[in-house]
Amino acid sequence: MKTFHIYKPSEELREWLMQKNAEKTKPPGALGMLEEVAIQIGIIQNTIEPVLRKPHLLVFAGDHGIAAEENISAYPQAVTHQMVLNFLSGGAAINVFCNQHQIALEIVDAGVNHNFVNQEKLLNRKVGMGTKNFLVEPAMSSEEVETCINNGAALIKELVKKGCNIVGLGEMGIGNTSAAGIIMSCVCKKPLEQCVGKGTGLNERQYLSKIEILKKAMKQNGIPSAPLEILRIYGGFEIAQMCGAMLQAAELKMIILVDGFIATAAFLIAFQLYPTIIHYALFTHQSDEQGHAGMLAYLKKKALLNLGLRLGEGTGAALAFPVIQSAVNYFNQMASFKEAGVSEKPLQLS
Amino acid sequence: MKTFHIYKPSEELREWLMQKNAEKTKPPGALGMLEEVAIQIGIIQNTIEPVLRKPHLLVFAGDHGIAAEENISAYPQAVTHQMVLNFLSGGAAINVFCNQHQIALEIVDAGVNHNFVNQEKLLNRKVGMGTKNFLVEPAMSSEEVETCINNGAALIKELVKKGCNIVGLGEMGIGNTSAAGIIMSCVCKKPLEQCVGKGTGLNERQYLSKIEILKKAMKQNGIPSAPLEILRIYGGFEIAQMCGAMLQAAELKMIILVDGFIATAAFLIAFQLYPTIIHYALFTHQSDEQGHAGMLAYLKKKALLNLGLRLGEGTGAALAFPVIQSAVNYFNQMASFKEAGVSEKPLQLS
Repeated sequence: MKTFHIYKPSEELREWLMQKNAEKTKPPGALGMLEEVAIQIGIIQNTIEPVLRKPHLLVFAGDHGIAAEENISAYPQAVTHQMVLNFLSGGAAINVFCNQHQIALEIVDAGVNHNFVNQEKLLNRKVGMGTKNFLVEPAMSSEEVETCINNGAALIKELVKKGCNIVGLGEMGIGNTSAAGIIMSCVCKKPLEQCVGKGTGLNERQYLSKIEILKKAMKQNGIPSAPLEILRIYGGFEIAQMCGAMLQAAELKMIILVDGFIATAAFLIAFQLYPTIIHYALFTHQSDEQGHAGMLAYLKKKALLNLGLRLGEGTGAALAFPVIQSAVNYFNQMASFKEAGVSEKPLQLS
Repeated sequence: MKTFHIYKPSEELREWLMQKNAEKTKPPGALGMLEEVAIQIGIIQNTIEPVLRKPHLLVFAGDHGIAAEENISAYPQAVTHQMVLNFLSGGAAINVFCNQHQIALEIVDAGVNHNFVNQEKLLNRKVGMGTKNFLVEPAMSSEEVETCINNGAALIKELVKKGCNIVGLGEMGIGNTSAAGIIMSCVCKKPLEQCVGKGTGLNERQYLSKIEILKKAMKQNGIPSAPLEILRIYGGFEIAQMCGAMLQAAELKMIILVDGFIATAAFLIAFQLYPTIIHYALFTHQSDEQGHAGMLAYLKKKALLNLGLRLGEGTGAALAFPVIQSAVNYFNQMASFKEAGVSEKPLQLS
């Protein structure tokens, strides 16, 4: 696989950033996570005047063999391509939220089991008509994984050329909570029961059946130690392309908005490959899908929002964008104690 | 005191609202709290096409006798008026966030211990040069409480005349976490230790001293059962005006954005007086000030955001505004399954 050069960003401005933050007219720490976000972005961009330019969201869609052949989702596989058409005509949640926040939105066919015709807005990066059923054989070949990583990376390079420095990654793919749950189980070394949730809305019986099917798959294929092998055997085209996009975004020092459960599964693979990617990531929303809290705990990160969403599409990233913009704005626009003539020094109480 | 006519909004459209929500192209419940917000706003406005009009934020500033005479805050009392000037010149956090989200912002002098000159943008509703020290005597007279309630209510009537249907209430007042902590203790019947926090940043020793002072005050003045008496003895001009504003906003069927710890203390008084006000309130941010989680538990409400803020000024309300707008937007703009041609009916799994 292509090598990425992902370095821990320089800490040389950290003290300056903290000094600038301390001078703002508010008690120390009173803006909570916004302060952490502002300083992180300052460090990523190596400036005390951080800026968000041309925010962009890519939604990767792909189908999963496991969903075509086994009963692991509440919805039929056709919903993947139907939702892609919904994205393209502007009717989905992610369209609404991106419009609201002027986030440019593009949809990527990473490998949907459908031939789209006359859909010029759809970015065709199709690697296949859905992955293989990992209950029978590995979901992808090594070549397919590599193509996915390269496709994701190439999309990010295009965005950077256009001046974008903050990118959100979202997804659509019936069955992909199964893939993401197994990826979590392999990477975080946790039992499947703690990693697999009810997805789009299984009932208790259907949920237990999903767990059984996935256990069987893991028994057959084993638990690979190499992250790319985990991705190849259990992953999806959309997950692998997101992973490539994240790696390229970190190499190019962009801010990466990680959405919910599936996007964080892609991030787990990227993190195993290049742990320094963590410095470029903002975890935007803690999904209600049960495994997500465990993924975030594994990464030692707290999500910005916790609105009980479990939709994917990048909706958590889009909803968190104004909060991230607020962090940058207060950091650049608030007055200092000196400028505002506000008493800075706390009283020494007896 | 003036009587408010605050009725539980009609439930006649609830089923229609739930039906409209169920038709959106997403799994049931997948937009989490946004769905609850959309339906709540639909019910408040008695429409299946809710709309947010001319969002407005009022910041009420007032001083506290307890802060002038006892060491209960990390900052000197002068910071209240200094921050008012900072609001007026646009340098505070609340200015930045309101600008970002096009929320109209007005600052109200509810009773700051300072004579403002040539500040035409400041709404003068001054009831006094700060409250009395409740360690010595009640903070306010009954007449002052009534004036505050009326002032707050009158401001809301003006907003409604201008077409506003969603209002956030924020505050500034050195010492007001002490007032709010005692209000919480009286209303929620919880020991002071669970209600009083470190405010703008006391250290452990200062915090214990703050608790001791407030305990002494409660011993002297007792625990009134009437909410207006709690407000009169321990409250502040800014808290009482916020309370009046909230009551008037509920009477006029506006959406009330309740900010953090102090604003929720004002809400607790309003809620004791008119429990039906709860239907008009959105709790925007769970403050890091320790008592706030307990207030929300008492009200059986979850805040939309939890970003670790403890700043006041209405900043939580302003930061939550785009999320509330997103709720209204998805509800009005997303395609239905039928419109988008997406398969609706979940598979019946074996």
